Amino acid sequence: MTRPAEPVAWPAGIQAAATLGFDMDAESVVLTVQPSSASRLSVMSHQAYGPLTGMPRILALLARRGVRATFFCPGFTAERYPDLLRRVRDEGHEIAHHGYLHESVAGMSAEQEAAMIDRGLEALEKVTGERPVGYRAPMWETTYATPGLLLDRGFLYDSSLMDGELPYELAEGEQDDARSLVEIPVHWALDDWEQYAYLPEVFGSGLIEDPEKALSMWSADLAAIHEDGGCFALTNHPFLSGRPARIRALDRLVAQMQELPGLWLAPAEDIAHHVRSLELAPRVFPQPVVND
Amino acid sequence: MTRPAEPVAWPAGIQAAATLGFDMDAESVVLTVQPSSASRLSVMSHQAYGPLTGMPRILALLARRGVRATFFCPGFTAERYPDLLRRVRDEGHEIAHHGYLHESVAGMSAEQEAAMIDRGLEALEKVTGERPVGYRAPMWETTYATPGLLLDRGFLYDSSLMDGELPYELAEGEQDDARSLVEIPVHWALDDWEQYAYLPEVFGSGLIEDPEKALSMWSADLAAIHEDGGCFALTNHPFLSGRPARIRALDRLVAQMQELPGLWLAPAEDIAHHVRSLELAPRVFPQPVVND
Amino acid sequence: MTRPAEPVAWPAGIQAAATLGFDMDAESVVLTVQPSSASRLSVMSHQAYGPLTGMPRILALLARRGVRATFFCPGFTAERYPDLLRRVRDEGHEIAHHGYLHESVAGMSAEQEAAMIDRGLEALEKVTGERPVGYRAPMWETTYATPGLLLDRGFLYDSSLMDGELPYELAEGEQDDARSLVEIPVHWALDDWEQYAYLPEVFGSGLIEDPEKALSMWSADLAAIHEDGGCFALTNHPFLSGRPARIRALDRLVAQMQELPGLWLAPAEDIAHHVRSLELAPRVFPQPVVND
Amino acid sequence: MTRPAEPVAWPAGIQAAATLGFDMDAESVVLTVQPSSASRLSVMSHQAYGPLTGMPRILALLARRGVRATFFCPGFTAERYPDLLRRVRDEGHEIAHHGYLHESVAGMSAEQEAAMIDRGLEALEKVTGERPVGYRAPMWETTYATPGLLLDRGFLYDSSLMDGELPYELAEGEQDDARSLVEIPVHWALDDWEQYAYLPEVFGSGLIEDPEKALSMWSADLAAIHEDGGCFALTNHPFLSGRPARIRALDRLVAQMQELPGLWLAPAEDIAHHVRSLELAPRVFPQPVVND
Repeated sequence: MTRPAEPVAWPAGIQAAATLGFDMDAESVVLTVQPSSASRLSVMSHQAYGPLTGMPRILALLARRGVRATFFCPGFTAERYPDLLRRVRDEGHEIAHHGYLHESVAGMSAEQEAAMIDRGLEALEKVTGERPVGYRAPMWETTYATPGLLLDRGFLYDSSLMDGELPYELAEGEQDDARSLVEIPVHWALDDWEQYAYLPEVFGSGLIEDPEKALSMWSADLAAIHEDGGCFALTNHPFLSGRPARIRALDRLVAQMQELPGLWLAPAEDIAHHVRSLELAPRVFPQPVVND
Repeated sequence: MTRPAEPVAWPAGIQAAATLGFDMDAESVVLTVQPSSASRLSVMSHQAYGPLTGMPRILALLARRGVRATFFCPGFTAERYPDLLRRVRDEGHEIAHHGYLHESVAGMSAEQEAAMIDRGLEALEKVTGERPVGYRAPMWETTYATPGLLLDRGFLYDSSLMDGELPYELAEGEQDDARSLVEIPVHWALDDWEQYAYLPEVFGSGLIEDPEKALSMWSADLAAIHEDGGCFALTNHPFLSGRPARIRALDRLVAQMQELPGLWLAPAEDIAHHVRSLELAPRVFPQPVVND
Repeated sequence: MTRPAEPVAWPAGIQAAATLGFDMDAESVVLTVQPSSASRLSVMSHQAYGPLTGMPRILALLARRGVRATFFCPGFTAERYPDLLRRVRDEGHEIAHHGYLHESVAGMSAEQEAAMIDRGLEALEKVTGERPVGYRAPMWETTYATPGLLLDRGFLYDSSLMDGELPYELAEGEQDDARSLVEIPVHWALDDWEQYAYLPEVFGSGLIEDPEKALSMWSADLAAIHEDGGCFALTNHPFLSGRPARIRALDRLVAQMQELPGLWLAPAEDIAHHVRSLELAPRVFPQPVVND
Repeated sequence: MTRPAEPVAWPAGIQAAATLGFDMDAESVVLTVQPSSASRLSVMSHQAYGPLTGMPRILALLARRGVRATFFCPGFTAERYPDLLRRVRDEGHEIAHHGYLHESVAGMSAEQEAAMIDRGLEALEKVTGERPVGYRAPMWETTYATPGLLLDRGFLYDSSLMDGELPYELAEGEQDDARSLVEIPVHWALDDWEQYAYLPEVFGSGLIEDPEKALSMWSADLAAIHEDGGCFALTNHPFLSGRPARIRALDRLVAQMQELPGLWLAPAEDIAHHVRSLELAPRVFPQPVVND
């Protein structure tokens, strides 16, 4: 049966981990659900806020605080903003895979999912000259085929599941001796989308939250995960968290991270490499079957 | 006509009651509304957070504070996580019925509802070796047939109605001299779902609240119900309230409960047995009829 | 053209007015939009919270503070809970019309609307022995025929429009010299529904707010309307605001009202009689016409 | 490719800019999406709150604080409330274009969009005797044809895009040497709609926020944009922000603006004229193309 993840033995002197992930969705996240939006200039400009305004602020924040982060980038964004992506690489951050056009794989065949992963890989490699080792599924939507497809392509880790705050080795299938992928779990509660996203008739609840509220929630989870020895994996979107008051709230959160004793703030790939070094027993996640 | 519940005479020295209910929905609550989700790995992992991560924290909290609670468990969860359910039993908590696959009975015939109740009962008995005395309808959805179906199967109490904060004897039908079931009422406002639940295209408003806000609301109702002499019945879901900052907020609420003078914090079955001992006149809840 | 309401000359020593309206929707507000809910026991119990639990608390609060309020009651509620309605009357409160089954008149013919008003009137008169002088449209939904239908039946005032905080004389049609009805305007922002209401698949945003937040909003509007010399018309529903922490928040708001100098807290009918005594020029509210 | 906007050189002594925009939607914003609402008296009164109650308060606030603002007015509102619009003009504020009936241009042909712009222009000129130089698209919905249509009609600026907080010159098409329009960007987060708007079955999330929360968010963005040297463009709707507590929150925000050193608070047209004087290189905003 499904088992909880084993506690992670962090490197010496380390009590808990944290990683900042920026999902560079830009236009893709709208185009994938509403292709006709390509002709909606204001909507496109709303998404372009990410690369044009949010990204420079995020990169400046990270440089000022000396923090390396992970940028999960759809292939379409890489092709549309290649200079920006190369700047991310040149400033020492990790670039990871985030689909081609931010496609949801719900209902896709494994072949379709594989084609999407390949197309995204090709775009990232062409723009950056490097092959990513990490994957975050668009919309955090994966299938039971996803781990195998990623392993076939040499990925080290995935960051799309939501069963806890501890990284682990995820078995490819339902056998303990299968190949495995490092998993760095995420959660809707540690994501800026639910707090800030709103585009009429495209996404959002219709409400927009105060950055103070988001900061309050995330700070409380940060302190608790630090105490528990877990991995605080926060997801931000440049088109959302790049706004003036929000980037300052994020900056205060990063300051809190830097003050927590023994907190290892690192790109997801560094954490994944550490987890891999622990040679943990792979964890099996059996698909549920409902008998009528 | 419908009458308010009579005030409850609590045991000597007791001013008010409180009960913690944990609905162990896990995967079932998604599978019941969207069967195709069985192939959505991330969604399944989001629900597995409950048994894998939330439950150990909840059990640890209850053990540390010396509190017994009630775990309302769908049969499907019992079959999928039998060791977990036996651990709950072995740590002295109550296990109660919560459907088989978290089915809504809205629109079901009495025969279909009976089959669902029987299937859930069978699963719980097989896993735990014990027959539950309490029932909480999935989605808190009951029909006017539900009380009779539960009485036929020997249940002592239900905890799915929402007309107040006082437990009472609920008459089976519309006659005062009918059989009756103890009712321990609940409410959407004393439930973590509305504060925290979000799964895109499955459930949730799209917003996720700060645990501080939930704690503020629940603390205020706790203090007021204590003053009023009622029964504070809080509902939490391990996949929601098991998260790091939320479990700490819940822990602070339990601390508040333990400091309130004369507050009886007990599993629902203990409260139900006390109510039954009072030999209250059954309360009739007539079905509304609209004449055109 | 439409004109703003004239400032109201309040009685000597009075600076502003306030009125508490309780909409006794109970089961009707659900049955009108989802007739099959009559067989959903939990849903019916959620609505019955109003008459069974909320109303006794509201009446006790008003008695303790010596405040008279207005209870807007659908005919169906009057027929289902006649003793409760007579208690409201006997404790000195105003009872006003709120439809028969809380029907929305959007899309109704004037004949259908008239039949609904007559059915509600008949039910209220039969139960209370008195004919109401005030009307609040269910869902605050009125047509351009509503004023005339109310005037034909001898109503003094309506309380369903939302164009300001000043009562006025509303002309029946588009002529200045038409008959007129006193209007006491309301607003979604001074209503507990948007803060608290949630019934899955029936109504609500899915979120439930902290009473502290509702109190903060309403207190701020109360102070501002007091300063402006307007009429603070607050709408509460017993099934919502009757809950333990919410009724205490409402009590604190009433305490604030009683401390504001020169605030006249009265049933809507008293305010309407005063407005009528001012012999204000009726205000015309022309129906918009869009030319293609 | 798309480039970020160049920093704006503000006039001597100026560190950052701010502009208050009031969108005078009134009835039009409902009639455009639900024409049958013309017969819903309460809904029409809810929208009439803007011209009848909100506008006088907003004009009084601006006069008291000596601030000039921009009123974006649909042609239909101008025709329905001509005296109000002339009062806005006579008090020294800017009047700008906001469609005829608040039409969304999503899916419109360029010919249909042109006809809408012309009809709005004609209404504004007829009522005020002046030709507006600014445009804000209804629902902030523009097409790639919008800039050319506005330039053909002599507009100086648009205020509907959302890619940052810096005004810029927006190229008409995809060539650097094209004609250009000044753009003063806006954002859903600096809009009162997401905080306050609710009309059942017409618009809104169903929740209504406390003005304190809106003020907290907007103050934080104001301080941050002031620090960054950007342009804080706040959008308010008289039918929303004209309410008693909300107008006071807005007043406190304006007071904060007036205390910030070197903040230039001006109508959008003044800011647009300044931006035009800088002779900035036009910025190209290429339409995305997704290859299958």
